[in-house]
Parts: sequence; C-alpha cells; structure tokens
Amino acid sequence: MRVGVLGAKGKVGATMVRAVEEAEDLTFTAGVDAGDPLSLLAEAQTEAVIDFTHPDVVMDNLKFLIDNGIHAVVGTTGFTDERLDQVRTWLDARSDVAVLIAPNFAIGAVLSMHFAQRAARFFESVEVVELHHPHKADAPSGTAVRTARLIAAARKELPPNPDATSTSLDGARGADVDGIPVHSVRLAGLVAHQEVLFGTQGETLTIRHDSIDRTSFVPGVLLAVRRVAERPGLTIGIEPLLDLE
Amino acid sequence: MRVGVLGAKGKVGATMVRAVEEAEDLTFTAGVDAGDPLSLLAEAQTEAVIDFTHPDVVMDNLKFLIDNGIHAVVGTTGFTDERLDQVRTWLDARSDVAVLIAPNFAIGAVLSMHFAQRAARFFESVEVVELHHPHKADAPSGTAVRTARLIAAARKELPPNPDATSTSLDGARGADVDGIPVHSVRLAGLVAHQEVLFGTQGETLTIRHDSIDRTSFVPGVLLAVRRVAERPGLTIGIEPLLDLE
Amino acid sequence: MRVGVLGAKGKVGATMVRAVEEAEDLTFTAGVDAGDPLSLLAEAQTEAVIDFTHPDVVMDNLKFLIDNGIHAVVGTTGFTDERLDQVRTWLDARSDVAVLIAPNFAIGAVLSMHFAQRAARFFESVEVVELHHPHKADAPSGTAVRTARLIAAARKELPPNPDATSTSLDGARGADVDGIPVHSVRLAGLVAHQEVLFGTQGETLTIRHDSIDRTSFVPGVLLAVRRVAERPGLTIGIEPLLDLE
Amino acid sequence: MRVGVLGAKGKVGATMVRAVEEAEDLTFTAGVDAGDPLSLLAEAQTEAVIDFTHPDVVMDNLKFLIDNGIHAVVGTTGFTDERLDQVRTWLDARSDVAVLIAPNFAIGAVLSMHFAQRAARFFESVEVVELHHPHKADAPSGTAVRTARLIAAARKELPPNPDATSTSLDGARGADVDGIPVHSVRLAGLVAHQEVLFGTQGETLTIRHDSIDRTSFVPGVLLAVRRVAERPGLTIGIEPLLDLE
Repeated sequence: MRVGVLGAKGKVGATMVRAVEEAEDLTFTAGVDAGDPLSLLAEAQTEAVIDFTHPDVVMDNLKFLIDNGIHAVVGTTGFTDERLDQVRTWLDARSDVAVLIAPNFAIGAVLSMHFAQRAARFFESVEVVELHHPHKADAPSGTAVRTARLIAAARKELPPNPDATSTSLDGARGADVDGIPVHSVRLAGLVAHQEVLFGTQGETLTIRHDSIDRTSFVPGVLLAVRRVAERPGLTIGIEPLLDLE
Repeated sequence: MRVGVLGAKGKVGATMVRAVEEAEDLTFTAGVDAGDPLSLLAEAQTEAVIDFTHPDVVMDNLKFLIDNGIHAVVGTTGFTDERLDQVRTWLDARSDVAVLIAPNFAIGAVLSMHFAQRAARFFESVEVVELHHPHKADAPSGTAVRTARLIAAARKELPPNPDATSTSLDGARGADVDGIPVHSVRLAGLVAHQEVLFGTQGETLTIRHDSIDRTSFVPGVLLAVRRVAERPGLTIGIEPLLDLE
Repeated sequence: MRVGVLGAKGKVGATMVRAVEEAEDLTFTAGVDAGDPLSLLAEAQTEAVIDFTHPDVVMDNLKFLIDNGIHAVVGTTGFTDERLDQVRTWLDARSDVAVLIAPNFAIGAVLSMHFAQRAARFFESVEVVELHHPHKADAPSGTAVRTARLIAAARKELPPNPDATSTSLDGARGADVDGIPVHSVRLAGLVAHQEVLFGTQGETLTIRHDSIDRTSFVPGVLLAVRRVAERPGLTIGIEPLLDLE
Repeated sequence: MRVGVLGAKGKVGATMVRAVEEAEDLTFTAGVDAGDPLSLLAEAQTEAVIDFTHPDVVMDNLKFLIDNGIHAVVGTTGFTDERLDQVRTWLDARSDVAVLIAPNFAIGAVLSMHFAQRAARFFESVEVVELHHPHKADAPSGTAVRTARLIAAARKELPPNPDATSTSLDGARGADVDGIPVHSVRLAGLVAHQEVLFGTQGETLTIRHDSIDRTSFVPGVLLAVRRVAERPGLTIGIEPLLDLE
C-alpha cells in the first residue's frame, strides 16, 4: 500500500513518516507540509494519506484527497458536526473513497473504554482512577470523563454504587460524573494512566491502561491505514476496526 | 421465580440457599441433599434448580429435572463429552427445558478471559501472571492455562512476542503455554488473582481479576438462574448470558 | 512461653486462642472472658497475656496483670493520654513488666506507613489512594489520614506537590490532608487496601498494602507476644519491634 | 556549588549538564569530553564533578580530580575491587576529598531495594516480579537478582516460602535466586519495572518501582552532588545519603 503523510514535518507527522518507512507492507510516497503542493501526493500515486495537521487546513486537505480518490486517516482535531456533514457530502460523490477521523488512536485506550462499557452492567460498584503527569491542566482527564459517561449509560438500569460513607473530607470520594466517582492523581514521573475498577461480591475486575510514550498512537494509525479502504464513507474512531462486535 | 437448591447442605449449596432467600425477585422453594427425595423440588413447584453436588449424582439429578420441566444451573464438575451428549439427548425430548453447566461462575473471571481474547490480536506482546495462595497444587492455574490458550489461538496469525533474552536463569521467563509466557506466584495472604498484560509501542493494557472470597460465584449463579429460561437446550458457561457479542 | 487470652470468647480473642495453640513455641494457658476470675491467668503461670476486650474493663485487666508480673499485649481501644499515664505509673512500680498497646497489629500496614515516611523527602510528588468495601462509614480511612499526616511532616521542608490543574470538577483531586491529596475508593469485593504513590523525574515508587482477611492482625500479635518481654515498661505500637531504626 | 561534567557530550552527560544548569543552587562550570583537557575543570574552580564516561578513562579522571581537590560523583561502570582499592589509596592522601561511585542513581530503585530488605523478616512469603521492554538481554534483570539476594540474606533464619505446588509446567514458578522465586516479564510498551510481593496471614505488602524514562537517574545524581562533600573518602551507592538508618 502506498502511503503519504500530511503535516510531515510536525512532531507527530515525522513520527508517522518513520513508522510508514519501517512497515514492511507499506510504501512511503510523499510527505507534505505547509507550503508544499498537495498535488505531490497524487503524482506519487498515493493510495492513503495520514493527516496530522491543523484545523485551519484539514478541510482543504480532505477535499483534495476525496476528489483524487485517496483514502484519509485523520488525527487532526476540530471536527464539528458541521464539518463532519461536509465531509459526508463530499464522500457521497465518491463512493470508493474512505475517510477515518479519530480523536484517539491508542488501541489500548480504545479497547479499555470498550471493555469497561461491556463490563458495566455486571458489577455492583464501579469507580475510575486516572493518573497523569503534574503539567496536566484538567482534572479529570477528558478520557476519564468520557469513560465514566459510557459506563453510566451502560448501567443506567442498575442501582447506584453502594456507599455507606457518612463522614468524609471534601473531595475524598472523588468527582461525580453521572454518578460514577472519578479520582485524578497528578504525580511527577507519570505520563498517562487510567484504571477502571469494577466490584461485586468477593471479586473485582480492573482494566488498566498505561501510556508511557507520546508515540502510542502509531500502531493505531497504521492499523487504520491498513484497513481504511474496507470501509468506504466516513468512519469515526478506530473502534469499528477492532472487530469488537 | 421459584428456585430450589440441590446439595443444599454443602458449603456452596448453603451459600446459594441464603443468596436465593435474600434476592427480592427469587423465591426459595426447597433444599435437597443426600437422602432427600428429588420429588420435593417438583412438589414445591420449583421452576429452576441450582446444582452444586457431586459427579456421582448429578446425572440422575439432571434426568429428574429435565423430565419434570425444571431448568437447571449446574456448577458440579465431571462433565465429559459423553455426559454432555447424554444431557443433550434428554433435552431433545423436552424443548422447553434449559440446562446451563459452567466450570466458573465468577463473572469477573469470565469477562477477563473474554476481554483478553478480544485484545489479543492488537498487541505485539502478551504475558499472563497468576497469583494464588501457597496451598495450591498446580502451577499455572487451570484458568491461566485456559486464558493463555485462548489468547494464543486468537493471535495465531501474529508473529510471536518479541524477546531478546539471550542470558537467563531457568524459569525466569515463565512457563510456555502455546507460546504465551505464564508466571505463577504463590504467596501467603493471597486468594486467587490473575493479570493479563498486553503491550505495544508506548502503551500497555492490563486486565486484572481478583477473587478474594470463596463466594465470588454467587452473582454469576444468580444471573444464570434469572436468565437460564431464555436459552432452552444446553448452554456451556455463563459467557453467552453476558451479551458480549 | 506461656500465654493467656483475655476476651477469649470474642471473635478476635477466639482467633488469638487458636493462633497461640497452633504456634509451636507458645503454650496456651487460659482463656478468660466476662465473668471469669482474672486469677485463672496467674494460677496457670501465664507469662504474657493478649487483651482484646473493652475500654470498660481493660484498665482493671492491666492493673491485675502488672501487679502479678504478667506482660501484656493489648489491642483494646480507648487509651487516652490520661490512661496511658496511669499505666506508666503502675509500671514504674514493676520494672520487670512490659506492656505493649497498639492501634494496629497488621505488620504490612505498619511497615508501609514507616516506609512511606522514609521515602517522603526524596520525591517531588506524593498522593494516597485508599480502597475499601462500601460499608465503611468514614472517608478517607483513619489509616490514610494518619499516613498522609506522617508524610506531610516528613516533607515539610520540600515545596508542595507540583500541580498545574486549572480546570477541575469538585472532588477530582481528592481530599487535602496537610497538603497531601487523599483519594477514597469504595467498591464491593474489596476489604482494606492502600497505595502510597511517590514520583519524581522519570520514576515512581508505590507502596501498597492489601488486607483481605480480618485475621491479618494475628502475625503481629504473635510477634509482640514473643518480643514484649525485651522492652520492660510501656511501648506504643509494634513499630519498635520491627528493628527499623 | 560549582559543578562540572565529564562525558559532557554523551547522552547521559548532556542530560546532566542541562540538569545542573537548571538547578538554582548549582552553577555549571565546564563540560569536558574526549579530547578536552581535564585542566578546564580546575581552571573553572569546579568543586564537584559528575563522571558518566567510560571504564577506559574513568581512573585517569579520578586521579586528576582527587589530586586537584575536586569531589566526584561517578556513574561510570567497570569498578573492580582492585580499582576501588586504588581509589581508596589515592583518597588516603587527600582526606578532604569525597568520591561517590554508584551502580544505580534512581532513588526509587534504591529505596525499594532497601525497604524490601527491611520487610523481608516479617513475612512468610516473598517473590519478585520484574517487567522490562523486550530488547533486554538478561533475565532476570541484575537489579532483581540483587534484590532477591538481599532479601534471602535478610530472611535466612526463616523457613522457606510455603509452596504446595505438586504439578507444574517448567518455568511456571520462576527462577530460583537463593530460594526466592523471580519472574521476568518482557513486554513491548514497558521500560523498567519491579515488584516485590510480601505475604503473610490475611495481608500482603507490595513495593513497586516504575522507571519510565531514561532520565530517572537525574534526581539521584543531583542529590549526590549536593551531599557528596559531607562524606570525605569513598562511598559506594547513594543509599548512605538517604538517611535510612
């Protein structure tokens, strides 16, 4: 498969160029960054493009790629509902092209969120503990909030977590996200980690994800590149590629 | 739902009698143990029976229950292929009756095995660490061996775990179960615990199950009792009840 | 060594009777409970007594034991400063007798608190996560509050934990105990667990204590019985017996 | 304090130059690498030098530093007993100079080894699990072997770990290091991690060290630089600086 990279000189883009070059089943065609013509990608007979660029340019990139029959795997942020509708409209005219846009390519993160949802109905109790480096601005992390919401939705017919706490210090029992306690640890020496703890009589199940390197998105992007063509049209997230259903 | 218990005076059976009595949506009908007539169950209009008895008597129990249109949830061991065929034959004549036989009712254990299988294809590396009390006779545990085999089957098209070990002490890298390293820890103060560790570039996913109480089978047996009637015929394991597919 | 038990019919006392009987180097002399004369202990030539009784009777017990030259290992609660002074006064008159009073005999708990204090000065960040069964009334646990206070005292000359949190949900960052964030998880299937997490550049150190059984005090009580005579006078806590300094 | 760096252009040395420059209480004087004269360090009035160089040059470096009254903090490897004796001889002639040579500057690693030794006598069972990236050549890691040996020495008067294993697969119970089982996990996505698990009746104590970044030696080297002058003569390891006794 012939693969190009948009945003090839950015930190993430450069990592993806190297990853494509090292993958035996992929051929790197062209790297394009600000100032380079998009036509380089078409001239090099690129079949799929990885886009980690900027909200300001990603829509133009997608228009070009779709018009030229090139599949796209996109990690750029800033996709509003309006933008997604626009992409769908463009794709309607090219039923052979596939675009995958994902907020998170870390396979472990996506799987742990999926498993947490599946387990949610079968346990009396569930809490989330997320642990990050101390430079993080938000607490809880966006992933933890999203995980808690998915769990809450999955167990909405169950009674709430049992909890006999009658005396407590402010904050001890964590933040309440749709009824699920979420605890945020900020510690030097950590990167990004999350534990979902489920409990019922006599047993617990813990799903833990550790991301210790900013390159943990690479295997997920490569997976998406390899399989994007199987799903013409617009796909959101890599979960549909993981054959989970 | 009207529920009886076979082996009602055994440790597990007695625990199940209490659990049925405490469940608001279930009514306990009769407890039967060695010497008691099975007819007590039918006379009490029992709809489903929990059987934690002995390989010597469980087949007679099942014949009686199927003949009398009573569903069965069975934790008794010793089911050979031959025995399972016999049960299927009996059930062919009573298409309204359901029998569920499971080697493990701990929901956390069953889910963790299922999730491990699902994750197996998406990571370069996987190992299993199981930790038990020091009175255990076998190493690795039966559950760990089964988990490793399921993982090995799921990733059979992937290359083996990367491993540059060139100098090692005997045993350091664990037991090899179908290519998956399995490590067995035996420690005072533990009960039964298992971790499946998956790793790829920059991230790991850990699925951990802790069973710290011999009663961890209770929620799974109650779940099976509540849903057994939905699946006439023979069901093996509680996994099909967990809506995982 | 000849050992008696006060409160021998209580849950804890009965466990201690069995533990003494099973220990090869100890001889059980007499079990005394409400209504039994304390003189039974002296008549049986008891050298040391384990007291898990009640605040209402423990002072009378100690007076008798000290007067009769019998060492005491005490897990009974309710010792005010005034009571401790009274015990010291009694002991002044009997320089051959030793009394050890401890709020917690679980060796793992005591060691983890000690190690946490020792590590505290060498890490930029520290947080405490404690996890208990959902029937617990207080959050954080008394042990977690005490651990956090000891850590805070040990690092009082260090800058506070780095923490760039600027947007957060109430409670996400835990309870503040003398500047140390403490998080309380309440989950079915747990008993009593605590993690102290330390972090600095590129590394973390975690000290975790799991208590999964109400009998985890037994080894600490036996240790105290075996060594109490080495320390005539009053000793508070089992820490001095652990040769940590 | 005025601090220089030997091996300043190497990966570790360059990291240390930056760390010294960023520390408010330290002044960077000079970086010396292959080809540069050692006299640069003396001319810049250096008080202490960090040496991460090569076994081929480290002895010459130390001779120069000691002769010039400059303290040394050394992470270079290859110190035989003979070499250490030579250093001691040089130091005998300069009682005002301090040299600290350490195989491991990661404070968390050193503390966890120390705590493991201290805890060893108080638990029936102990095992070591070490987890590393899959490019590691030796199993178990040198740190795990050393940890196990220290634990074994500390508990040599205790009975061996209880272990009822009667049926096992080769390797399941780990490598035997002086009677302590050591298990080595090799997993993509990991860096360097170690758990020491202690257990006794009803409770376990786990000491876990995670090193996720090759810079985890930095805080320990800085600590050594700040305190080396307090200990004239030769010091081996950073443990004596941690005020643990």
